[in-house]
Amino acid sequence: MRSESALIERIRAMAGRPQRMVMGIGDDCAIYRPSTKDDLLFTTDLLVEDVHFRRDSHPADAVGHKALARGLSDIAAMGGTPKFCLLSLAAPPWMDDKWLDMFYRGLLRLAKKTDCPLVGGDLGHAEKLMCDIVVCGAVPRGKALRREGARPGDSIWVSGRLGGSALGLEKQQGPAWKSHLYPKPRLDIGLQLRGKASATMDLSDGLSIDLHRLCSASGVSAELDREPPRFAGAAPEHALHGGEDYELLFTLRSAAVGPKGTTRIGAITPGNPGAVHLKGERLEPLGYDHFRK
Amino acid sequence: MRSESALIERIRAMAGRPQRMVMGIGDDCAIYRPSTKDDLLFTTDLLVEDVHFRRDSHPADAVGHKALARGLSDIAAMGGTPKFCLLSLAAPPWMDDKWLDMFYRGLLRLAKKTDCPLVGGDLGHAEKLMCDIVVCGAVPRGKALRREGARPGDSIWVSGRLGGSALGLEKQQGPAWKSHLYPKPRLDIGLQLRGKASATMDLSDGLSIDLHRLCSASGVSAELDREPPRFAGAAPEHALHGGEDYELLFTLRSAAVGPKGTTRIGAITPGNPGAVHLKGERLEPLGYDHFRK
Repeated sequence: MRSESALIERIRAMAGRPQRMVMGIGDDCAIYRPSTKDDLLFTTDLLVEDVHFRRDSHPADAVGHKALARGLSDIAAMGGTPKFCLLSLAAPPWMDDKWLDMFYRGLLRLAKKTDCPLVGGDLGHAEKLMCDIVVCGAVPRGKALRREGARPGDSIWVSGRLGGSALGLEKQQGPAWKSHLYPKPRLDIGLQLRGKASATMDLSDGLSIDLHRLCSASGVSAELDREPPRFAGAAPEHALHGGEDYELLFTLRSAAVGPKGTTRIGAITPGNPGAVHLKGERLEPLGYDHFRK
Repeated sequence: MRSESALIERIRAMAGRPQRMVMGIGDDCAIYRPSTKDDLLFTTDLLVEDVHFRRDSHPADAVGHKALARGLSDIAAMGGTPKFCLLSLAAPPWMDDKWLDMFYRGLLRLAKKTDCPLVGGDLGHAEKLMCDIVVCGAVPRGKALRREGARPGDSIWVSGRLGGSALGLEKQQGPAWKSHLYPKPRLDIGLQLRGKASATMDLSDGLSIDLHRLCSASGVSAELDREPPRFAGAAPEHALHGGEDYELLFTLRSAAVGPKGTTRIGAITPGNPGAVHLKGERLEPLGYDHFRK
């Protein structure tokens, strides 16, 4: 394993020289000069070995990809454009230079594709790998999409097809496994929802719990009149309760129509805040809660 | 243990409503409206159980305090004013509500004192506690203090007295232990160095390795003509190589004098970049490197 200084040099060389940054990797802080027209968005997301991924099944570049994708998905959910990211990484004893290079390769490939340069972070060690991604995004002032604006009468929409990640985790092969390993944050759809959606969030823990959260934040309830579109081969449970699809969940004023690639699945109603029904039956929030026993 | 949602509500209630934020805790991202006159500073710092602290010796509020203090010290090292922070926390099985409340109490007490509200983050679980603090600070445009501007002839200074944290970790009692548990980031001194210091960084890993890093970044070497001021009871090794003092290390043009509470310890010289000598003898960088075997 390289020394800490050599490692920082290696990461800096791989990351390249970011545009618009006064200072990237290599000092006590990264320095960013904000535009006067933007609100800035900030999100952090943990990725923990044996919780979010397993060393024996997940390739290193997929772990790096997912670390960043989780943060980018939050930026997409607010209608933002990514600006830069930072990564804190606690390296475990089993990690070697090759694994680490592949991890950063996966992360930096997605960073380049989404114009979100890596500009800093921290390095440490721990018994198991854990990393925390910080992503900064920007939206025109006052235009961020929030999860609290859904009103009775609004329609409920999701992007893409759900359940692929949960199915993939079970099968560990095929297109579903690929969608689990390399999720695509829906930045393009988030942009199209700016000034249009009344409430938006990303589907990270599962439709049932995330829709419950959106309804709780908005003080409304939801009636789904159909199941969400399912990833090929996925069961209804995968699509309703499976996490890590990183699709977008959003609401529109009644007459509006969602962007291409999105599907209307129901409507917002008054009533018990946070309650969700599917075809008249109560849909319990069975998605992922880190603190549920 | 509370559910994830209840936990987020609890943290939001403890954190209070931040000023200047469009949105704090509770959505996919925090939203910040930057001033047009500032450059923004970003730093992340890991804190890992059994690496940075031990559950049996470190009170929960000290762990929370130190998590934030590490980030604030990086902001101080750039001459910045703290604006807000985010915390990602992976909770271990042994953590109960009481420990968690005390942890956040320690963090939020320092956050309030330094006007650096907690506005977001992430929650997860892991076998051992690990957290990652993100701090955003601001400086007037172009005024951030960097570590690469030291030039031959500049004088070298440190704030405060060194070695208290390393001594405290050995003794686990008295004022040195207290200085280890509750380090004070030198935000006041950082502010006084704006427009004055040619290079600045914080002392997180030990004077010998941090001065080596400052000299490497600036392409110069250093000659110390005296040992740094020592914390009462600390040995020369504590002060020269001990980490976690979170004092500031900086250089000034030859005639300038440091702020109150700082001490001149040597001068920058040309020669082998990164080399450090103490009274003519080579001072090896023996401070903390997470990746040294």
